[in-house]
Amino acid sequence: MLRQSFHELVVPTRGRGFYEFTDSVQKLVARAGVKMGLASIHLQHTSASLLIQENADPEVRRDLERFFSRLTPDGDPLFQHVSEGADDMPAHVRTALTCVSLGIPIADSRLTLGTWQGLYLWEHRLQPHRRRISVRLLGE
Amino acid sequence: MLRQSFHELVVPTRGRGFYEFTDSVQKLVARAGVKMGLASIHLQHTSASLLIQENADPEVRRDLERFFSRLTPDGDPLFQHVSEGADDMPAHVRTALTCVSLGIPIADSRLTLGTWQGLYLWEHRLQPHRRRISVRLLGE
Amino acid sequence: MLRQSFHELVVPTRGRGFYEFTDSVQKLVARAGVKMGLASIHLQHTSASLLIQENADPEVRRDLERFFSRLTPDGDPLFQHVSEGADDMPAHVRTALTCVSLGIPIADSRLTLGTWQGLYLWEHRLQPHRRRISVRLLGE
Repeated sequence: MLRQSFHELVVPTRGRGFYEFTDSVQKLVARAGVKMGLASIHLQHTSASLLIQENADPEVRRDLERFFSRLTPDGDPLFQHVSEGADDMPAHVRTALTCVSLGIPIADSRLTLGTWQGLYLWEHRLQPHRRRISVRLLGE
Repeated sequence: MLRQSFHELVVPTRGRGFYEFTDSVQKLVARAGVKMGLASIHLQHTSASLLIQENADPEVRRDLERFFSRLTPDGDPLFQHVSEGADDMPAHVRTALTCVSLGIPIADSRLTLGTWQGLYLWEHRLQPHRRRISVRLLGE
Repeated sequence: MLRQSFHELVVPTRGRGFYEFTDSVQKLVARAGVKMGLASIHLQHTSASLLIQENADPEVRRDLERFFSRLTPDGDPLFQHVSEGADDMPAHVRTALTCVSLGIPIADSRLTLGTWQGLYLWEHRLQPHRRRISVRLLGE
């Protein structure tokens, strides 16, 4: 019999960067006793992203940051919405270029992530924030 | 007992721009009586996107449009597929860079969107189109 | 009564390019006998993407490849993580700019894709790989 549960995670950030939360979701799956099912994960913000990326060499994430900083630099004179700071509109663009919603199948009581996949909150703002993530678990 | 329903939304566009349809999905959730569950939303096109972005200052969306227009300008000589117009291939690229499928948990009879999150159909073509969106609601 | 099934697809690639697997998922839906429901599809890798794009003119996909090759060229001196080859970090960036997780509603025993939508594994590495995709079907 399929059943469901709902959870809200809060990830406090110290400003721009990557914050892994794979284990937090994995613990929710274990506690809810979902052996087979689906995790639907949604970030409730428009200036941060959910990213699945390599969890081995941290240089990969630093290079991702370098690429996005070059692609959409803070203070870009293209932007008109500047009242919230030089990093605000680049943060919205980064969010549009990535994802805020992910669905990951669960099998054998685990998220079916690949060996090198970690689940990250990517904070795009320079200042610290408290980021809220909705998690819906469906399964049995 | 989990149950499900399926809906198709049509969003008519007047050409390139953002069309909010948060309320349309919220109404489906209310009518289907889903208190706890999941909304899976899929756009059936390859030259428009589903975007979750700030619903406060409309300048944010104009800046997003400015950024994507600069990143992938209409008439870019890089492209070979030009038979459908100078804005067609940039539209496909914008779609690839963003999302066409979103999953949003439902709690307390509402999509668990953040305070500033709106759900937008982002039309990338210059001409008006009728865009179809599939919505699967799962829950109880 | 809602029920579920889990499947793993393997897509062998011959290096960078697009590999359509719409039919493989459609066959899973048919075999599982899901008339109404949801397919949640997740790619277990960080240097390849899941892409829904036009399945008509193949030039569209070649243009997508041209655009991403220009946006994030192999051997870009910006990157520090180069030990796995000049195409590795661009592959991670392409993955971050696109999607690895998709949710597609099923109705009338079919994925509710649009007429021109095909489901592609986009291999970003130059060398051949075996790519694993998790598929969760939920429905009745």
